[in-house]
Amino acid sequence: MKSVNLAGSGTGGSVREQAVQAKEAARRLRSVSTMEKNAALLAMADALEAQSDKILAANREDVEAAKAKGTSKALIDRLTLNQQRLTAAAEGLREVAALPDPVGVTVSMARRPNGMEVGRVRVPLGVVAIIYEARPNVTIDAAGLCLKAGNAVILRGGSDAFRSNRAIVAAMCSALRETSLPEESIQMVEDTSRSSAEELMRMTGLVDVLIPRGGRGLIQSVLENAAVPVIETGEGNCHIFVDEDADLQQAVDIVVNAKCQRPGVCNAVETLLVHKAVAGEFLPKAAAELKERGVALRGCAESRGIVPWLEAADEADWETEYLDLVLAIKIVAGLDEAVEHIERYGTGHSEAILTGSYTNARRFLEAVDAAAVYVNASTRFTDGQQFGLGAEIGISTQKLHARGPMGLEELTSTKFVIYGSGQIRS
Amino acid sequence: MKSVNLAGSGTGGSVREQAVQAKEAARRLRSVSTMEKNAALLAMADALEAQSDKILAANREDVEAAKAKGTSKALIDRLTLNQQRLTAAAEGLREVAALPDPVGVTVSMARRPNGMEVGRVRVPLGVVAIIYEARPNVTIDAAGLCLKAGNAVILRGGSDAFRSNRAIVAAMCSALRETSLPEESIQMVEDTSRSSAEELMRMTGLVDVLIPRGGRGLIQSVLENAAVPVIETGEGNCHIFVDEDADLQQAVDIVVNAKCQRPGVCNAVETLLVHKAVAGEFLPKAAAELKERGVALRGCAESRGIVPWLEAADEADWETEYLDLVLAIKIVAGLDEAVEHIERYGTGHSEAILTGSYTNARRFLEAVDAAAVYVNASTRFTDGQQFGLGAEIGISTQKLHARGPMGLEELTSTKFVIYGSGQIRS
Repeated sequence: MKSVNLAGSGTGGSVREQAVQAKEAARRLRSVSTMEKNAALLAMADALEAQSDKILAANREDVEAAKAKGTSKALIDRLTLNQQRLTAAAEGLREVAALPDPVGVTVSMARRPNGMEVGRVRVPLGVVAIIYEARPNVTIDAAGLCLKAGNAVILRGGSDAFRSNRAIVAAMCSALRETSLPEESIQMVEDTSRSSAEELMRMTGLVDVLIPRGGRGLIQSVLENAAVPVIETGEGNCHIFVDEDADLQQAVDIVVNAKCQRPGVCNAVETLLVHKAVAGEFLPKAAAELKERGVALRGCAESRGIVPWLEAADEADWETEYLDLVLAIKIVAGLDEAVEHIERYGTGHSEAILTGSYTNARRFLEAVDAAAVYVNASTRFTDGQQFGLGAEIGISTQKLHARGPMGLEELTSTKFVIYGSGQIRS
Repeated sequence: MKSVNLAGSGTGGSVREQAVQAKEAARRLRSVSTMEKNAALLAMADALEAQSDKILAANREDVEAAKAKGTSKALIDRLTLNQQRLTAAAEGLREVAALPDPVGVTVSMARRPNGMEVGRVRVPLGVVAIIYEARPNVTIDAAGLCLKAGNAVILRGGSDAFRSNRAIVAAMCSALRETSLPEESIQMVEDTSRSSAEELMRMTGLVDVLIPRGGRGLIQSVLENAAVPVIETGEGNCHIFVDEDADLQQAVDIVVNAKCQRPGVCNAVETLLVHKAVAGEFLPKAAAELKERGVALRGCAESRGIVPWLEAADEADWETEYLDLVLAIKIVAGLDEAVEHIERYGTGHSEAILTGSYTNARRFLEAVDAAAVYVNASTRFTDGQQFGLGAEIGISTQKLHARGPMGLEELTSTKFVIYGSGQIRS
């Protein structure tokens, strides 16, 4: 590996130097073929497997260091690689190679009255920077998706995964050296201090888009400070509204799934809204099932009238993305109150109505302003794979450019191409 | 008109209050029909015509005040309304009413293996804020386009057009009061100080997108300071490359058109790149035609060897968007040097190759990274109307969300809608 790729001395100049290299790599990536990109992705997968001993050894060091400083169990779990996880990530790169190439697709093409043909063609974004925390698998996924979409990528991971990320990037770059793609297409920022992140945020003209993946603090800091375009991947304070004529047994199953199947992720449900007409029948069943699975339940006064053992919910509960086995419960007068509650407290991620009413399903779909709006299904499906995008670089909660799970297409831009025959404007 | 709409006392609280009202209006706009929006647009057009005396009187005051402080002639021209221009703007609203509604269009819909149907539907962005300078017609165009796409709009125009904008917004809001659309859909910020613009830039959660339209200083300030999502509408340092086997007479016509037809706009050509093999034949002809039209020509050393009366160009000329009857000229060794020059000095707006070579046309289209890339046509066509988008809110030079002329579709977002039948994730 060229020293310059991973030089990252932590000084400002060096991060900028990497961005300049990434920009140059992006220029060259504009004209590589799908076959060349796929060959590179397969070579990267092979290299990760071939160098798995080195990568896992580096990861063990990271994990030991994290344990020594008392890092939480959940974080240690996200940091930890093993042979199986590494193989799965390599397999992920092979799956990305098998996906259709978004670049070069003609989105539209029409002949204008003056005979010019004006079309829109999908092109790479250019340089994508990703700031993330201690998840080494993101290093592999993000590099693969960015490359497939023809972008150079600047990876700025967290300090806890530093050794793992370095070993992973070394493997991937060694693979690129054997292909026609520029090795500089993948840049890892070794400086894991706040200043390197802030430098990336201000690199107008070099970074085409910055995607922060992590907690609220990181996202807020990026939104406040970035001068480059950003895609916000935000919180999910998700709701399920059980309507008057929902199938109540199905509703119990969906709520249990949305809360318990993986409580630590952004598409898990955080507040359950129940129509008052069915609360008496539904809540005792649902509460019992959830309690059995270890979920702590916090209810409004009315719901505690029905299930007395609920803890009392307060304003903070409606606002909180627990990311844990905790669920807030509120009884509402009907669809309008449910929609208002979601409008007020929701984060625009995933919202569901469970209903047998055609009219209410339509009204909910129209009135609720969120990345994903469900009728009669678990919010846990908000995911690139589950939605059929093939892969995912994150879930956008902003409305510009990308909303909801972002696949390869969201890692591209378009340009207008104009085929003329001497036209001038009159 | 409700006083609160145009209260704009200039205090921070008031701009925020307007944004809160705009957000509430946007919530209501989500569920208005195309017919209701079109009726409102037609009513707005009628009101502008009915109140043209008031509007033109207000505009005369603005123009007088601008003249008194010695404003440039070009700016006075952009500021000035007359019956004809006002009628044209009202007609523009009627044309927007006639355009297809982008909202509610199902972009995709597919059944997943588990039976869920997952689709993407076009929805309004929400609240669009526009910061612009002294062009009262922007007030009309922007309000019309935003409303048609189901958005509330916050208009923050320049101080020179204050009276004109107030009269225009009063007319449009009086029309809204007679329709089913909330009057608060159109908000004018009366405070034209820098602080109101800065306040808009920081209104995360209230403003869904901010579009600055104006000079370099305004755009830079917004990029640096905005916490809300921004669409950059940037400079156009546009190039035309006359290749070895271009039709030289056609090339003269295109270059003259791209420079002279309207030199003050962003899609006018600023630098002419000429293949050295045809410079001897092409340049004398082109230079003579341009000189005849009053264009000042600044050439590289080599081009001055061919046309001795050219002024000498220096580095600054390659970087400058003249927006005037000035053209820089450089002789290049061929396509590669032309592409490199454009990569270095271009602003990613509009770039053209004039050539008879299939291979070079293809290479130029692929290699040049700009919003609009032309073969054998004038760069002056980069425009929403000319490209067939029906109308235009600006020309984006960023790669995220929108690139090139932005029409109604670029004023929308999408959401995923999921039709389930009890699916849970395993």
